[in-house]
Amino acid sequence: MAVITLLTDFGTADGYVGEVKGILLTNAPAATIVDIAHDMPAHDVDAARLALARYWRRYPAGTVHFVVVDPGVGTSRAALAVASDGRFLVGPDNGVLSPALLARDARAVSLAIPATASTTFHGRDVFAPAAARLASGVALEQLGDAWEAPVVRRTPEPRRTGDGALHGEVISVDRFGNAITNLAGTGGSRVVARNRELRLRRTYGELDAGELGAIVGSNGFVEIVLREGRAADMLELVRGTPVILR
Amino acid sequence: MAVITLLTDFGTADGYVGEVKGILLTNAPAATIVDIAHDMPAHDVDAARLALARYWRRYPAGTVHFVVVDPGVGTSRAALAVASDGRFLVGPDNGVLSPALLARDARAVSLAIPATASTTFHGRDVFAPAAARLASGVALEQLGDAWEAPVVRRTPEPRRTGDGALHGEVISVDRFGNAITNLAGTGGSRVVARNRELRLRRTYGELDAGELGAIVGSNGFVEIVLREGRAADMLELVRGTPVILR
Amino acid sequence: MAVITLLTDFGTADGYVGEVKGILLTNAPAATIVDIAHDMPAHDVDAARLALARYWRRYPAGTVHFVVVDPGVGTSRAALAVASDGRFLVGPDNGVLSPALLARDARAVSLAIPATASTTFHGRDVFAPAAARLASGVALEQLGDAWEAPVVRRTPEPRRTGDGALHGEVISVDRFGNAITNLAGTGGSRVVARNRELRLRRTYGELDAGELGAIVGSNGFVEIVLREGRAADMLELVRGTPVILR
Repeated sequence: MAVITLLTDFGTADGYVGEVKGILLTNAPAATIVDIAHDMPAHDVDAARLALARYWRRYPAGTVHFVVVDPGVGTSRAALAVASDGRFLVGPDNGVLSPALLARDARAVSLAIPATASTTFHGRDVFAPAAARLASGVALEQLGDAWEAPVVRRTPEPRRTGDGALHGEVISVDRFGNAITNLAGTGGSRVVARNRELRLRRTYGELDAGELGAIVGSNGFVEIVLREGRAADMLELVRGTPVILR
Repeated sequence: MAVITLLTDFGTADGYVGEVKGILLTNAPAATIVDIAHDMPAHDVDAARLALARYWRRYPAGTVHFVVVDPGVGTSRAALAVASDGRFLVGPDNGVLSPALLARDARAVSLAIPATASTTFHGRDVFAPAAARLASGVALEQLGDAWEAPVVRRTPEPRRTGDGALHGEVISVDRFGNAITNLAGTGGSRVVARNRELRLRRTYGELDAGELGAIVGSNGFVEIVLREGRAADMLELVRGTPVILR
Repeated sequence: MAVITLLTDFGTADGYVGEVKGILLTNAPAATIVDIAHDMPAHDVDAARLALARYWRRYPAGTVHFVVVDPGVGTSRAALAVASDGRFLVGPDNGVLSPALLARDARAVSLAIPATASTTFHGRDVFAPAAARLASGVALEQLGDAWEAPVVRRTPEPRRTGDGALHGEVISVDRFGNAITNLAGTGGSRVVARNRELRLRRTYGELDAGELGAIVGSNGFVEIVLREGRAADMLELVRGTPVILR
């Protein structure tokens, strides 16, 4: 019984996700459907890519990850199915699948777009049928021809300056207002953002209520946090704000 | 193992959906519960009806659709269970089930309201037990007496004028800001809304970034769209805004 | 096949819930995962406690309730697993599990925090593995040492004055703008809030559109309601607003 996870920017109120799940359950009745999120910011490929990076490897072998944030639907962008590290993924060729495409053994195929497919809803008409087939045990290669150069998007790499400081940036702001950076959380003890120098702490417990600090987050990267508050709001941290680790 | 889908305006944070799912899993332990949406606008029967229209037939035979947007709970409105085209539905008799009621073979029964039922939460006390029974294979007729004239709400029909133009309106605005109309997407090439004439395109790919256009959406109806933007915001399109197809 | 329900304040868009579900499905592949809510107000332990009170007993025996609203993660607060009335729960020792802890037969154990656990995400690294073990049939006592004095938070009790009136308060405002109080809905016929006296009605159907009233809600407590509107907005009712039942 394969798992199919769903990450989209469809929202739920319009019924689009309802349609996708119906296709999945009709074509793969024994699959277990798992919602990741449907409230990704509309068309925000990078936000979906970063969320996917967190969870895709945590699922059992054979899991199919449906990842559809697809501003280019109806253009010439390819529709992909990918096998990587024992899991499968389906989604548009716009970089959203990058975390899995960057794995050593990743293989991608290009899905055919049926003539009957809607030009605006490949989630329903292309990706859901492909996900159901993969969940049912159909081999990746049965789904399409090899696709040699999928679009890959990468999180920017921090750069080290002569004084040993590591210059990075905010990658995302999470629901709690924590600002997550691209700075791996080792080799420093002070973090600077918006001209504020913050100590790198080991736990929230080392901060007082209302105190700003930095911490190594659950994915191994430095986060700027405010105990019992929203650091990103207080310091006006957004995607791309420079952050330095010393 | 029957599927039970859930569409409500309950939100999730108050625990109401949690109560409903507990009733379902207690009474139909083998059922597969599928969330469609719980964030329908409060009391918006038409929004739920339109979402239901998209997905209800896409599920396997035997699926039970729980559809509870119920501003009249605790009034004399009937509580319905419906069989239609191989699927089942439960929900209030306020028109929300219309897509299924309009099918040729639809049959409805009126659910008894137990004396112990809350007067404010028939989702938990009336509809969930009925859904669990249907998912467990109990026949529709076992659930109540035939209900001959359920409330049906219809999407307004466009009308054709002497010059051959089709006069319709915006039916809903989706999460992406696309304005979905009641104009079937055939027999025209130009769409007029708010005094703007837009070409009917085949795909998003024919539009430039930031360009307005019209397109036939995934349910077969004309939508007014803005590539990489929100058409409804730009043109102030809301439910009921007139739209003409020439 | 045990059920695992999830109540968090994680939101879904960051992928944190996706990680938790991956851990659960990897460690308890046969479990049925049920979303209660992930949109609890951030760090609002009382809101989660009140939601839990509604649903936890409605699930089959053996169900595991994962309840993680955890502002103290990374401090010295304990991580708990609880058995109560045939169900299990996991969550932080901050009172969020109170509804189950107050049951007569409740037993709690303190979960060990592995050295490898993130200091910011015990949902993933502590509570999810524990939930998976409970769902797989591991005994509570295998998960940790008995924890004798868990934190319990209680809804404030109303007090009765000499004239027989019961003085309570608003406990929460639900998605529909209903203001839910701590006044058990018996022994009175008039409700006073913000100097407005409202009749206690049996059903919404006794109210006209736009009329304010009080009603006994689906959990047995008095709610202040506005037919086809939001009572809490009209009367500026918030958590803690005094309400009197006469």
